[in-house]
Amino acid sequence: MSDSQLSHAIDRGVHLTPAGDDRFAGHAQAEWQNMVGPFGGITAAAALNGVLQHPKLLGEPIALTVNFAAAIAEGPFEVRAVPVRTNRSTQHWNVEIHQEGSDGPLTTASVVTAARRETWSTDDEPMPRAPAPDTIVVPPYTPPVAWVNNYEIKPVSGTLPTAWDGSDGESSYSLMWMRDRPARTLDFVSMAAISDLFFPRIWRRRATRVPAGTVSITTYFHAGSEQMAEVGTQWLLGQAKAHTFRNGFFDQTGQIWSQSGHLLVTTHQIVYYKE
Amino acid sequence: MSDSQLSHAIDRGVHLTPAGDDRFAGHAQAEWQNMVGPFGGITAAAALNGVLQHPKLLGEPIALTVNFAAAIAEGPFEVRAVPVRTNRSTQHWNVEIHQEGSDGPLTTASVVTAARRETWSTDDEPMPRAPAPDTIVVPPYTPPVAWVNNYEIKPVSGTLPTAWDGSDGESSYSLMWMRDRPARTLDFVSMAAISDLFFPRIWRRRATRVPAGTVSITTYFHAGSEQMAEVGTQWLLGQAKAHTFRNGFFDQTGQIWSQSGHLLVTTHQIVYYKE
Repeated sequence: MSDSQLSHAIDRGVHLTPAGDDRFAGHAQAEWQNMVGPFGGITAAAALNGVLQHPKLLGEPIALTVNFAAAIAEGPFEVRAVPVRTNRSTQHWNVEIHQEGSDGPLTTASVVTAARRETWSTDDEPMPRAPAPDTIVVPPYTPPVAWVNNYEIKPVSGTLPTAWDGSDGESSYSLMWMRDRPARTLDFVSMAAISDLFFPRIWRRRATRVPAGTVSITTYFHAGSEQMAEVGTQWLLGQAKAHTFRNGFFDQTGQIWSQSGHLLVTTHQIVYYKE
Repeated sequence: MSDSQLSHAIDRGVHLTPAGDDRFAGHAQAEWQNMVGPFGGITAAAALNGVLQHPKLLGEPIALTVNFAAAIAEGPFEVRAVPVRTNRSTQHWNVEIHQEGSDGPLTTASVVTAARRETWSTDDEPMPRAPAPDTIVVPPYTPPVAWVNNYEIKPVSGTLPTAWDGSDGESSYSLMWMRDRPARTLDFVSMAAISDLFFPRIWRRRATRVPAGTVSITTYFHAGSEQMAEVGTQWLLGQAKAHTFRNGFFDQTGQIWSQSGHLLVTTHQIVYYKE
């Protein structure tokens, strides 16, 4: 199947074909371009997909860490996914993304997969209250970069500043509804991508549009494929905030729930910023 | 220098000697033993030390992810630290820990190092209020595992349950003062180890001592070596909580401040639990 036959941008962005032992060929698409290279979320999803497509996979993803070492250029790339250790119920993976002519990997990642079992379970973080997504009307706008078109976002609180006036606000917190555009049944790759959807907290906190880019993201998956399929095309509710901005790097941390109230992922990243 | 000449358990735990290109020899010490294998924090610190000792290192650690693939046995181990990509101001590392006869790495890790610059900086997470550590008296107790002897811990709130009665509490939150025992000037290796010091949140939340073990930990360093040296031997204040416990895995997230109020690290982990 060629990329253009795949009906959804997510599927085109993560599409891989086998290219030898532990190797898969993909293609960085123009529709996922960010300011420098593609949206980090789609790169994370493509790295994860190398594991999901691997014939030796056992279980389902629990943890994904992706390090963005250099920008991926539009065009062909190779995902190398290696199962470095397989235990009775967990498996550890190293993943790299390469492009021809690049000096070392452009992306490195680690993935833990596991066979999950029924156990005592409970949530400790309450889902934030938010008005229903249908009641929130977002004025049409033209995003400055292509990938934003692949998502619907309805801010609840902590939107992007309306004035970039360097006003140095009091909080980096945002709450928003979000989903794939067009709607698409949730799965691990779309969940991995959406986990990177929170805009840089420094823009919110500082009302100054400094250059910023994710250096490393870690996402923990708290739902399996069955539960994600049940979520289907529901809106997801995400909250995010930073803890500190210090000497060129800040952290941001987020949680994402299904509309029906299941905590699906917790996600953390460290982000470079300038000035 | 032999391990026994090193004066502090931390230094013995992370001590490495060059053993060829990208390779370093270490020794898993009895004094760091946990229930199965060593305390994860000292393993994380030893992995990080492979990067810190590497002749090609540029900058200082920003992000550290450590995946615990299998238990390390007491005795010799090898750290393999490879700089997979060096940019103008960041460097990406893959690290593995091996032992003779093991089938693949026992630990995998990734580290991002960077040259930090003076920028606009601010904290977004307030330091929790806590009584001074000197006012908290902890009754003497004999820890069930060796590594706990290497730390002083003064709980402020959310202590280990006094009755393991399965009472299913309402919160997984803990706040505590902590530092190396004996006191030792803070640096990246001790900070990496202390980041794993929060006991499993499920014990706190559930008052049931189920088997639990960290699968993957990610720590973001918000202070450099100079600031850590200034912290010196101060007490550190740490808070931790879980977001969810689901089907055999829960997450926990923590922040650690110096006594004088600097947020030093944010740290996240996903933890296996049984039943």
